[in-house]
Amino acid sequence: MKQIAIIGFGIVGGGIPEVIESLGDNLTAAVGDSVNVKYILDLREFPDSPYGDRVVHSIDTILEDDEIVLIAETMGGAHPAFEYSTAAMKRGKHVVTSNKEVVASYGDELLRTAEENGVLYLFEASVGGGIPTIRPFATSLAGEKIVSVDGILNGTTNFILSKMKSERREFADVLAEAQALGYAERDPSADVDGIDAKRKIIILAALSTGKLIPAEEAYSETIRNITPADIDAADRMDASIKLVASAKISGGRLSVFVAPQIVYSTCPLASVNDVYNAISVTTELTGDVMFYGRGAGRYPTAGAVVADIAAALSGAARAEKIPVFEKQPGAAEPFGRAPMKYYIRIAADSASDTLETCSRLFDSVKLLEGSPDGKVELICGKASKDELDGIRKSLGAVESVIRIHE
Amino acid sequence: MKQIAIIGFGIVGGGIPEVIESLGDNLTAAVGDSVNVKYILDLREFPDSPYGDRVVHSIDTILEDDEIVLIAETMGGAHPAFEYSTAAMKRGKHVVTSNKEVVASYGDELLRTAEENGVLYLFEASVGGGIPTIRPFATSLAGEKIVSVDGILNGTTNFILSKMKSERREFADVLAEAQALGYAERDPSADVDGIDAKRKIIILAALSTGKLIPAEEAYSETIRNITPADIDAADRMDASIKLVASAKISGGRLSVFVAPQIVYSTCPLASVNDVYNAISVTTELTGDVMFYGRGAGRYPTAGAVVADIAAALSGAARAEKIPVFEKQPGAAEPFGRAPMKYYIRIAADSASDTLETCSRLFDSVKLLEGSPDGKVELICGKASKDELDGIRKSLGAVESVIRIHE
Repeated sequence: MKQIAIIGFGIVGGGIPEVIESLGDNLTAAVGDSVNVKYILDLREFPDSPYGDRVVHSIDTILEDDEIVLIAETMGGAHPAFEYSTAAMKRGKHVVTSNKEVVASYGDELLRTAEENGVLYLFEASVGGGIPTIRPFATSLAGEKIVSVDGILNGTTNFILSKMKSERREFADVLAEAQALGYAERDPSADVDGIDAKRKIIILAALSTGKLIPAEEAYSETIRNITPADIDAADRMDASIKLVASAKISGGRLSVFVAPQIVYSTCPLASVNDVYNAISVTTELTGDVMFYGRGAGRYPTAGAVVADIAAALSGAARAEKIPVFEKQPGAAEPFGRAPMKYYIRIAADSASDTLETCSRLFDSVKLLEGSPDGKVELICGKASKDELDGIRKSLGAVESVIRIHE
Repeated sequence: MKQIAIIGFGIVGGGIPEVIESLGDNLTAAVGDSVNVKYILDLREFPDSPYGDRVVHSIDTILEDDEIVLIAETMGGAHPAFEYSTAAMKRGKHVVTSNKEVVASYGDELLRTAEENGVLYLFEASVGGGIPTIRPFATSLAGEKIVSVDGILNGTTNFILSKMKSERREFADVLAEAQALGYAERDPSADVDGIDAKRKIIILAALSTGKLIPAEEAYSETIRNITPADIDAADRMDASIKLVASAKISGGRLSVFVAPQIVYSTCPLASVNDVYNAISVTTELTGDVMFYGRGAGRYPTAGAVVADIAAALSGAARAEKIPVFEKQPGAAEPFGRAPMKYYIRIAADSASDTLETCSRLFDSVKLLEGSPDGKVELICGKASKDELDGIRKSLGAVESVIRIHE
């Protein structure tokens, strides 16, 4: 029997014992042995849980027990997850995690510690919940030259934007509903300001390039400013507004950004709705490959943790090409320089005057039909953020600027 | 240096040496050794190919050369691919293949032969071209209880149906264009009558259940009868017509079928257009997971073959849970019994009369708005194919019946 410990008994961690139980003999067959949760580390007590008797309050109990061969770290946050995981691996225990913050911040060091101690550090559940993401990068796509990764990586914002579109409601109103439903936190910043998605795309960029960039080198923009008028405009463009996280790789340079973008309905990301996530990978050889599924939620994510537990304990993960990446400050191109297309809405009476002004400022300008009275809407490109920031001053009353996904 | 042989130097096989060359050091690193194509078996000569000097015309040259550790079988057809692969494995050589026909017909025997001889038989490229499909079934989804697999598995028919929709053209007209472009064969039956998709869904059903069913137990229906009028109707339903291949698993029973279906735009399969393929897997734990990408084409498919070559030669595939399935005639439920919903178009003047007739015959009936003059269109359900065949006789001039995907 393989003894394991869970550290952090919240949404995801709390699902692990149930998933282990529900998989039953299938898991035993995959591992070649039965798996038992011996300890659960949490500050709280869980008197009503059938697993309540396994709760301990000190990490040392787990670290010092040589029977424990693996720790499932589902506590979230960079600290003390980093320290606990490091200590466990130094004692010869595998670590599997759903914690994107610690992987995005310290993934390089954690993978090195794993290697030095002959154990595994696996993090399938840290990106895309139950969607197989990390493993395809390490197996099916191994050796392929990745050109870009584009994803809808945050279920909360995707739920909000989907509802704003289908019910033509304001952001604040839908956010309040998402909070009431438990889909959004009371402080929604990590989700709606793109911080969570940024952590995930930093991990995917590291898997694609071997370079782990610091958070401040990735750009992120909030969805708080998106309005029903923006969504109407996207509709007229046969498109949807999505919070897209992208890593673009060309000529050895990397650009990582998260921003609300207008996605044309011909792009498969446009039809990813509600809490679903999707990761689209473009490689030189295979072209586009997309992985789609539930990006969050107790059972999908706990299921991904348990898949990693099985891969670690069976030895399957050891034979896979284990991802390695190094921290590389300065590896990412400053986002301000990447040329993009934009949807721009301006309060103006004369379409022709505005069109003329914009056609002097942009290489290409197209008037969008069906604008509300007193508004002129244009599709302009291409300009970098830096150039756009300069251009905006000449444009008068700009109501909205949204990037167009290409 | 690892010596390998390619048998069948057509579209896919012809791409393998190029992919091996383009991956270069990445492949060497993944395998832990360089990979060399020593022989290419084909009936033809290739005097203009840079690999023309490796062409041999007898399988024995390859089988008898102990240096050859792996054969990439890309010849297509069940025979002699089955015999050649069996002979190679009996001589201790791994076999990787892109040949869905041989896997769908003899996959069980080939996997058994591999096991008995301590070698690997891998077939990632047989379903979904460059989309990672087989490997996620064997790794990320291992141990999960699969409820259904639904896929758009044939690029040719998806191209035809996409064009018929976007350009409102007749089937025969678009087929002729697809043939001119090389997307469809001169005899298009394997594609347009669902035979190719049926082979692939039989393989996916076998991976999901462990049961390989004979081809005659899976139902397939042609797309030849789909008309622009059907596509108009689907449009009014905010849906698209797709050739969907499904394996439904419930209560230990399996139902496998391929048929043109009306797919609502809320379903991610609806936005899979042109030659793209997608495989959607529903599991009890993770919910829906979808894999999307180029399902055919020289480089994506050859890339998948080379990924299998790397997995076999590096030993990574040996640690994965290797799929096993057994031939199980009678495992599939006769398709005629599965209850489904239908779109039905009837030549009739009175909607109310038709509605009345149908509401006596079906449990639920809904009138579709915007029908052309002299036609009545209904969404009816649920009925099995057997029941529907009976009902049709009472309906008068039925112009079209198309299943609705759920």
